[in-house]
Amino acid sequence: MSKNNLVLGVDIGGTNTVFGLVDKTGNIFLFSSIPTDADKSAENLFSRLFEKFHQLSENAKEEFELVGIGIGAPNANYYKGTIENPPNLNWGFVDLIPLLKKFTDVPVALTNDANAAALGEMYYGAAKGMKDFIVITLGTGLGSGIVVNGNLVYGHDGFAGEIGHTIYDPQGRQCGCGRKGCLETYVSAPGIKRTVMELIAKTNLKSRLRSVSFENLDARLITESALNGDELALEAFDFTAKVLGIKLADAVAHTSPEAIILFGGLANAGDLLLIPTRKYLEENVFHVFRNKVKILKSELNEGKSAVLGAAALIWHELSKH
Amino acid sequence: MSKNNLVLGVDIGGTNTVFGLVDKTGNIFLFSSIPTDADKSAENLFSRLFEKFHQLSENAKEEFELVGIGIGAPNANYYKGTIENPPNLNWGFVDLIPLLKKFTDVPVALTNDANAAALGEMYYGAAKGMKDFIVITLGTGLGSGIVVNGNLVYGHDGFAGEIGHTIYDPQGRQCGCGRKGCLETYVSAPGIKRTVMELIAKTNLKSRLRSVSFENLDARLITESALNGDELALEAFDFTAKVLGIKLADAVAHTSPEAIILFGGLANAGDLLLIPTRKYLEENVFHVFRNKVKILKSELNEGKSAVLGAAALIWHELSKH
Repeated sequence: MSKNNLVLGVDIGGTNTVFGLVDKTGNIFLFSSIPTDADKSAENLFSRLFEKFHQLSENAKEEFELVGIGIGAPNANYYKGTIENPPNLNWGFVDLIPLLKKFTDVPVALTNDANAAALGEMYYGAAKGMKDFIVITLGTGLGSGIVVNGNLVYGHDGFAGEIGHTIYDPQGRQCGCGRKGCLETYVSAPGIKRTVMELIAKTNLKSRLRSVSFENLDARLITESALNGDELALEAFDFTAKVLGIKLADAVAHTSPEAIILFGGLANAGDLLLIPTRKYLEENVFHVFRNKVKILKSELNEGKSAVLGAAALIWHELSKH
Repeated sequence: MSKNNLVLGVDIGGTNTVFGLVDKTGNIFLFSSIPTDADKSAENLFSRLFEKFHQLSENAKEEFELVGIGIGAPNANYYKGTIENPPNLNWGFVDLIPLLKKFTDVPVALTNDANAAALGEMYYGAAKGMKDFIVITLGTGLGSGIVVNGNLVYGHDGFAGEIGHTIYDPQGRQCGCGRKGCLETYVSAPGIKRTVMELIAKTNLKSRLRSVSFENLDARLITESALNGDELALEAFDFTAKVLGIKLADAVAHTSPEAIILFGGLANAGDLLLIPTRKYLEENVFHVFRNKVKILKSELNEGKSAVLGAAALIWHELSKH
C-alpha cells in the first residue's frame, strides 16, 4: 500500500501556534495547537511543536509520508527564510530554515499570513482555478497577498503586498507604522471602531453604539448592530466599504486581478461589506477594468484557514520541482 | 556561415510607425519609419511596412534570419493579440495576429508601449539583471510597465499596469478617462503644464512662464526655465515629484520593486525630477521599503527605445520556449 503524501501546515500566532497535516486537495488529517509562549525562543516553540506532532501522529506514521512543511508567520521573509522582528513575538531576527534542520529534513517554506491565505484560497478556496487575484485579510490590520499569473508577488525584498499601508488620506488617521492615513487605519477591525467613534462625533444618528466605549467596542458588535438596522453601524460599514473600494480601484490598476477575496474577522460581515465594496469599486475604478473584477468572500473554513494557507504554500513550492 | 537571428521591433504611433531589425543583445541592424496614416486600416499600414522592410533588407537577406516580430501599440492586448479602439488611430478593434499571418509566418507578440518599454529596459537598459522593477513612461500620459520576478504583469485581462490612472486626489483635476485626480493629470507633459498654470494663479512667484499661454507652453520650456533658476518652474518640478513620490510609495507597497525607471519626455529633465522624486518617495513610503528602491532614468537611446522595447518583447517570448 502506497503511503499518503502529506504536508505540515503551521501558523504562528501571537498567542497560539496551530498546525495540521494536509493533503494536496485540502483534507486535514490531524489538527492541533500549542501555546506560542511568545517570550520564549523560536527553537523552544518548534521543539514543543514537533514533540506534540510526533505524539499525535505516532499511531499513523506507517500510513503517511511527510513531504514538506509550510509556515505562516508575521514578518516572515519567503526569500531568506527568516522571521524579522515580529510585532507580537519576542524573537528579534530568526533564521528559521537552519533552525528547522534540527528537527526535520523535508523541504520548508515560509511566508507571512496574508500570502499564505492567498495560496490557501488558490488551492482550496474562492480562488480555485484563478491565476490573477488579490486576497485582503481584515483583522487587527489589513494584510494582502497578490497573485500574478499563478504565483505570489514577493517583490525584490520578499515583502511585497502591503496594500494595508497604501495611503487613503495623507492628512488622515495616525497609523501604527508612523505615517498618516494608511488604508488599514480605516479598513480593519480597529479601523471600523475608529469610524464608529468618528460618526458618533460628527452625526446625530441614533445608535446603541453611543453607549459603548471604544475599548468595549468590537467589530462583531458593530456587525450585529448593522444587521439589526442600527443606522450609525450601517453608515460605518458604508464608509469602510467606500475607503476600501477607492483603494482597491488603485490596486486593480496595478495588477488587474480577476477577483479580490476578503478574508478574516471583518469579512464575516458578508454582504454588509461585500455589496457596498463592489459598488464603490465600480464607481472608482478606471473604465478599462469596469465590471470585470469580482469581490468575493473567503471560502476557507475560518478556524483552519491559516493552516490550509501554510500547507498550500509548501504544496505550491513542491509543485515547482 | 550561420545566419544572424534577428527580430523586427515595430512601434505604432499616432503619426509615425518606426521599425528596426534587432539582435538579442540590442544591436540595431536596420532602422526606418513610415507614416502611420491613422485614417487608413491596420492592413494598409502593415502592407506598406513589410514592403519597405523587404526593400531595405533585400541586399542583406542571405545574412540574417527573421525569427519573430514584436509590436508596441496603444491599447494593445498581449493575451488576445488585439488592438482595441486606440485613441489616435481610426482602427476600432483589430485582430492583429491573423492579419499579420498574411505577411509573415514567424511568431508575433504585441503589447502596449509602456510594457514594451519595461522589457526594453530589462534587456537593453537600466533594468538589466533586475527581476522586479517598474517603468514609468512620462509623455502625453503616464504609462507603466510592472515587472515581477522577470515577467511583465499583464493581469487577468491583459491590461494591468495603469498606474497613471491611480487616484492622487479624488477632488482633483479632470482626467480624460472621465474621473478626477488621476496621477497622469499631474505627472505627464500636460500635467506639469497644468501645474505651472495653477502656480501662476496661486502664487506671486516671478516667472518668464507668466508670459506664455497654456497652448504655447511645453515640458521642454518648463525644464529650460527650471534649469535657468526660474522659481515657479522649479516649484512645478517639485510639486510634480511630490505627487509622483506619493503615488510611487503606493506602487512600491504593491509589488516591492528594486527600481523605478523614469522614461520619456519629462524624464529628460533628469535630476530636476529624479532628485525630488527620490526624496518624496522616501518620505512617504512604508518603512519596510525605506532606502531600498532606486529611482533611475531610462538608459535606452530615446529615438530608438520604442523599437528596442518591441524587439525585447518578442525576444522575451522566444526565450520562454
